[in-house]
Amino acid sequence: MNSIRRLTIIGVGLIGGSLARALRDAGVCGEVVGSSRRSEHLARAVELGVIDRYDTDPARAVEGADMVVVAVPLGSMAAVFRAVAPGLAPDAVITDAGSAKRSVIEAAQEGFGEIPGRLVPAHPIAGTEKSGVEASFSTLFERRRVILTPVTGTDRDAVSRVRAMWECTGAEVVEMDPAHHDEVLAATSHLPHLLAYGLVDALARMEDRVEIFRYAAGGFRDFTRIASSDPVMWHDICLANRDAILDVLGQFQADLDQLTAAIRDRNSPAIREVFTRAKEARDRFADIEDGIIPAE
Amino acid sequence: MNSIRRLTIIGVGLIGGSLARALRDAGVCGEVVGSSRRSEHLARAVELGVIDRYDTDPARAVEGADMVVVAVPLGSMAAVFRAVAPGLAPDAVITDAGSAKRSVIEAAQEGFGEIPGRLVPAHPIAGTEKSGVEASFSTLFERRRVILTPVTGTDRDAVSRVRAMWECTGAEVVEMDPAHHDEVLAATSHLPHLLAYGLVDALARMEDRVEIFRYAAGGFRDFTRIASSDPVMWHDICLANRDAILDVLGQFQADLDQLTAAIRDRNSPAIREVFTRAKEARDRFADIEDGIIPAE
Repeated sequence: MNSIRRLTIIGVGLIGGSLARALRDAGVCGEVVGSSRRSEHLARAVELGVIDRYDTDPARAVEGADMVVVAVPLGSMAAVFRAVAPGLAPDAVITDAGSAKRSVIEAAQEGFGEIPGRLVPAHPIAGTEKSGVEASFSTLFERRRVILTPVTGTDRDAVSRVRAMWECTGAEVVEMDPAHHDEVLAATSHLPHLLAYGLVDALARMEDRVEIFRYAAGGFRDFTRIASSDPVMWHDICLANRDAILDVLGQFQADLDQLTAAIRDRNSPAIREVFTRAKEARDRFADIEDGIIPAE
Repeated sequence: MNSIRRLTIIGVGLIGGSLARALRDAGVCGEVVGSSRRSEHLARAVELGVIDRYDTDPARAVEGADMVVVAVPLGSMAAVFRAVAPGLAPDAVITDAGSAKRSVIEAAQEGFGEIPGRLVPAHPIAGTEKSGVEASFSTLFERRRVILTPVTGTDRDAVSRVRAMWECTGAEVVEMDPAHHDEVLAATSHLPHLLAYGLVDALARMEDRVEIFRYAAGGFRDFTRIASSDPVMWHDICLANRDAILDVLGQFQADLDQLTAAIRDRNSPAIREVFTRAKEARDRFADIEDGIIPAE
């Protein structure tokens, strides 16, 4: 790719920090400037060698940057867009890392007063249950997918530059309609997080709390790992992708009601059918992930 | 411990096979005899060195054994108890590895016509999503918990022998009331499995199936791992622990309804409260597991 002369990252956490590390490791990035509200986090990011310098004023932080990545919770997007607007160079490409895309496009309209042609909405499908720059690492995006959701007015050159940037991290980049992105992610990511949060919260509120967790096995640990994710980030996702999430939640609850009825009625064929179909799908998914069978 | 002269394992799968391997490695076990309905599985277990010999007739397989472990799906317990009864030596200790305990005690009443004093109901809280003797390994029970649920008439010497056997595998052994066991496990194990099966099945039935799984991230893989578990075993658990499972399912569904309402109403404080409480509980659970903070 054409290298990035100056990269500004707004929100130097797990995603922003890992992107900076990956681009540095790939040797495609000149200066890296960080910005966020908390100067102590930014100072720590400098210490860790993730960014070169920082400015808590977003407009100053983006001055002279040819690439700006906004990696903040969805609820802060509009305010960040508004704040960076005065400093943004006319030819700067701006992109984000939000987990819902229609809301980012709306936030751009709100923050910039229009949807800038050089704004490329993007979502790296990667992460861990940890948060913050301390948890960032340069290989987070390797073999992961990054979804770009350009709209009609999006500049194709800007799309190419964002694609090239993410490819430097080892990610596979695809393009998708924003609404379709939001539906797919509601099912594969947002719903599982809600179930994990809901389950752990339900157990935590049961009286014999300590004992319950004491007798949890390895499967429980894996199943609930995502319930350690950042509550603010996930609160924002719930509001930003509310409609798609309510759709899949409704479908899931109807399915769970049916499974509950099958157990209540001791309906063996119905119970076995759900479990067998799920096992086949999960095994197939694992084989695809492991590269044992191709995705198509 | 007093070593086991002859161990018979009925059902040489992940659990039965791993127990045999662990006891062999600990050097506390003489001959190991296997039994199940499928002679090809048993022949494979001999090949793998997990058992010394096998007999597909359960009564013959337990002849001369001083320890009998029944590691079959819960729905097969009563039939296995009935089948082994004629061959069981009067001083033999018999135990099981079922994931629900009241049902095993009922199955003993049914299979033996009484609850034998030398039957020690037991549940090793260990496993993986894989099944079968090929998946067995000797360290499966290390640092895992095994719950014994003796009843009033259970012989204390038999309890001691089963405890000593499991301690040889590296497990921590505790005793619990059978009904309490069933409630705790419904919450920490059975409910998560139902949610994972239900989620994967719901996604698998959505139209854009392949694509949905294509954009699933690492968190999804962890979250759904347990949906690859054996459908027969889990069908049996649903029926065997039906009442406790329906209780926790009902509680979970009520909680999920509330969370859904909070998202629908854009009730930020309610959403944040659930996520924050869940994250705290999950982080604490992980710290206990990692030994960073003690369980009490």
